[in-house]
Amino acid sequence: MEKYTADDFRESIRALESAISKCEKAKIKLKDGSPQKKWVNRQLEAFYVALAFIKKSKKKYVREECAAALGTLELSIQKCKKMLTRFIEPGSHKTLLERRRKAFEIAVELIKREAEMNDTLKTIATRYSCRGYTDEEVGDADLAAIAEAGLQAPSGMNRQNWHIVVVKNKALIAEMESEGMRVLSEFPDKAIYNRIMSRGGKLFYNASRVALIAVKEAFPKGAELIDLGAVAQNMALAATSLGVDNCYCGLAVFCFAGSKADEFRRKLKFPEGYGCGLGVLLGYAKEPSAPHAPDKEKVTVIE
Amino acid sequence: MEKYTADDFRESIRALESAISKCEKAKIKLKDGSPQKKWVNRQLEAFYVALAFIKKSKKKYVREECAAALGTLELSIQKCKKMLTRFIEPGSHKTLLERRRKAFEIAVELIKREAEMNDTLKTIATRYSCRGYTDEEVGDADLAAIAEAGLQAPSGMNRQNWHIVVVKNKALIAEMESEGMRVLSEFPDKAIYNRIMSRGGKLFYNASRVALIAVKEAFPKGAELIDLGAVAQNMALAATSLGVDNCYCGLAVFCFAGSKADEFRRKLKFPEGYGCGLGVLLGYAKEPSAPHAPDKEKVTVIE
Repeated sequence: MEKYTADDFRESIRALESAISKCEKAKIKLKDGSPQKKWVNRQLEAFYVALAFIKKSKKKYVREECAAALGTLELSIQKCKKMLTRFIEPGSHKTLLERRRKAFEIAVELIKREAEMNDTLKTIATRYSCRGYTDEEVGDADLAAIAEAGLQAPSGMNRQNWHIVVVKNKALIAEMESEGMRVLSEFPDKAIYNRIMSRGGKLFYNASRVALIAVKEAFPKGAELIDLGAVAQNMALAATSLGVDNCYCGLAVFCFAGSKADEFRRKLKFPEGYGCGLGVLLGYAKEPSAPHAPDKEKVTVIE
Repeated sequence: MEKYTADDFRESIRALESAISKCEKAKIKLKDGSPQKKWVNRQLEAFYVALAFIKKSKKKYVREECAAALGTLELSIQKCKKMLTRFIEPGSHKTLLERRRKAFEIAVELIKREAEMNDTLKTIATRYSCRGYTDEEVGDADLAAIAEAGLQAPSGMNRQNWHIVVVKNKALIAEMESEGMRVLSEFPDKAIYNRIMSRGGKLFYNASRVALIAVKEAFPKGAELIDLGAVAQNMALAATSLGVDNCYCGLAVFCFAGSKADEFRRKLKFPEGYGCGLGVLLGYAKEPSAPHAPDKEKVTVIE
């Protein structure tokens, strides 16, 4: 669904912030009530809405504000296009204008999406795997809602062969992380280890909270993994809906692949017979990112 | 999350419908502007809201209507309780009043939930496995949105080893169903076959649309099943958010466990190397039901 890249979002944020700063400066110089001042004010309102949408910031605008912003942004796009026709040669001014136009276009699409989809579809479409977290901690109420959402997943024959362990203890998280990295470093295939090292060497990407989903083997063997995916996705979507960034962490199983497995299982209070199935990282993104583009070729309809 | 059973919902619907019919009759006889008529009108408005919530009907009431209904329902509960104290002996009138009170209480809780949770959390909490469908067909726009939601699932290392096949062809659905039941009937363990037979003998519960999620083996083996669960859950939640009832159908794999496997794979246009992972049934419920109660013991927090 998401056709924009993380770079598109970053560039758009820069373009909008520069447009806002320019408008804020212009505003001071313009006479109250003048058409110029009115236009600058309209633009400012629209640019702040656009920035909020692109940053996926939690501040919500009501439908009317979005509609007004949409109109102003579409007008701004036209103005940009008109100005762009005046440039024959490339140059920094032209590049700036093109970036600004693109930022407006992205914002227009995001605002339109917001209006057309229901909140669940929006959550599904905007969830992405966050691989860099700030130190900000996720609150207990959000953690409880996320875990409860996990429990609300379906399971084959309602077996519920799962157990969710929410780890808030930072020392334990660090201990698991260092054990996981140690095991990975000794793994014959170094590809995964090198990938994590190139991303900063942190298995949990500095997430302040790590939820582990423990599972028990089901019949037929492997069926518990389908249930596991459903639990994890409920948790990821609940988190996204609450503004909590998140990421599946399949590599969490490596923390349990070395000599500390039993110690961790005990410290994490896994029920007897349960092993680590998957981790779900929870926190707040260092910078907003975009979901992977889904491959629409992967749907067939049989009439 | 859901502490009420399907029976609770059924009984509450009956109790509310009888209360509504009584009020509608009383209304005609009462003088306009009289306090009695005003109260009956208030009750009627509240009972219709309550019925919509319990039936999970798509008609939406605005916040103000819900708040008004909440007040009236809470007053009605008090009145019921007071009347109930007058009955010493059990009897049909007492039973009726008790059911009515329970219906009001359920409605109050459902309305309060609506106010407290965001739409995604609500969708997660209200999704349930629907095992009986009417003949009504799910529209193409909804099917497209549901399939697209499936594609928006995360997958380990973004491998997207999946393919979604939405089957609208009823002859093919019937053919798969009869093959699946045939294979199940020859399976040494008759438990599954007998369970389906006791539920009406239909593998797909008369769903007008069956989506099949085909998967290709990933590395490590089984990891594709976690992805599969995430795809299925995105589809189930997208469907629920659109008012489309749904159910995982793990038994769909049995359609591919007999001699017709290759024929079905060809007819369903599975990509080379892909096999059936899971079915997702889509349609409209014959009667509303409730999700399984999640087992809250299955969450541990490590401080």
